[in-house]
Amino acid sequence: MLLHWSPRSPFVRKVMIAAHELGLVDRLELRRTVVRMGAPNPDLLPDNPLSKIPTLVLGNGAVLIDSGLICEYFDSLAGGGKILPASGDARWAELSRHALATGLLDVLILWRNERDKPPASRTAAWLQSFEQKTDAALARFAHDVQPVGDGFMSLGQIALGCCLSYLDFRFADLNWRARQPKLAAWHDAFRARPSAQATEIVDDVQT
Amino acid sequence: MLLHWSPRSPFVRKVMIAAHELGLVDRLELRRTVVRMGAPNPDLLPDNPLSKIPTLVLGNGAVLIDSGLICEYFDSLAGGGKILPASGDARWAELSRHALATGLLDVLILWRNERDKPPASRTAAWLQSFEQKTDAALARFAHDVQPVGDGFMSLGQIALGCCLSYLDFRFADLNWRARQPKLAAWHDAFRARPSAQATEIVDDVQT
Repeated sequence: MLLHWSPRSPFVRKVMIAAHELGLVDRLELRRTVVRMGAPNPDLLPDNPLSKIPTLVLGNGAVLIDSGLICEYFDSLAGGGKILPASGDARWAELSRHALATGLLDVLILWRNERDKPPASRTAAWLQSFEQKTDAALARFAHDVQPVGDGFMSLGQIALGCCLSYLDFRFADLNWRARQPKLAAWHDAFRARPSAQATEIVDDVQT
Repeated sequence: MLLHWSPRSPFVRKVMIAAHELGLVDRLELRRTVVRMGAPNPDLLPDNPLSKIPTLVLGNGAVLIDSGLICEYFDSLAGGGKILPASGDARWAELSRHALATGLLDVLILWRNERDKPPASRTAAWLQSFEQKTDAALARFAHDVQPVGDGFMSLGQIALGCCLSYLDFRFADLNWRARQPKLAAWHDAFRARPSAQATEIVDDVQT
């Protein structure tokens, strides 16, 4: 399988952590693919017209887009029910936690794009809205967080961990750890997992 | 089940079409909930910290966010395998078609938000990028589109139909029908479905 990949995308990191958790990393061929909000990548467009990563190209030529979908596919390759319950209320709860963490990542990407514009081009109401949503989501996560255990991390935990790491990486000034110490302790446990350590985003080259 | 709803959100329309297709509309209590990019809705934040619709609140208090997840949940309520294959390659292909159409809707929402800013605040490279991605995605859909038959519409078809209707609604100036006549003919078949007619977005009040 070919994975359009970047070392600094938190969405790519989600699927890489899932691959590490599930023992699938050796089956992935990683292709470094740069995407930017204002510049679609012509080499990626044939596989994904939206020019987003991760994008997974299967051996039979089928293409899977969307990080959550790729994680679910990896789970099925590993037999199913490993990082995502196969059915029932537990599955819906897990998928909803995943959607919340992934949706917050979407907010953070938009926030960063807006924040990094020239001052005259920024929309103040958007910036304020992004901060409000982030605060509300962090409070929810602090309330609902599932401890990291010895088994597989779940899809929701993977997404949450990537989201919090991205906050550390791009929004250090928010100082979220001081405001959500319980969540910060959870994130420390996440960061100690081999799958998180193998995929850590360490430098600051623009992606 | 309580659905945070709006008559003009294409993401809400997706789940409403799924509910119509699956015979679940009578089980939904619709609550009109207004969301705006720059103004989180304080009444929605307790259910969804990201202030997005649709948001589904179940009888047991569990909350499902994300339109695709809600559609999948509805499919399970109807017995499963109706609008989304339960397993196998067909499931991955359907979920990927859904992700592409939903991702294009995300692009269109961002495009509209950017286009409607005061001219000095717009970022030209973004506007150009949104148009490129839209063109590329429409070309892909025209190539891959699955005919609307007599059975249930699929999740991917529902998402594509909502996306194309949104193009008609908010981007009439793009004139996509003239450029993609095969897709326009497909959309005419979509629009003729009772589930599409029951959920059509007809006026132009700001949401």
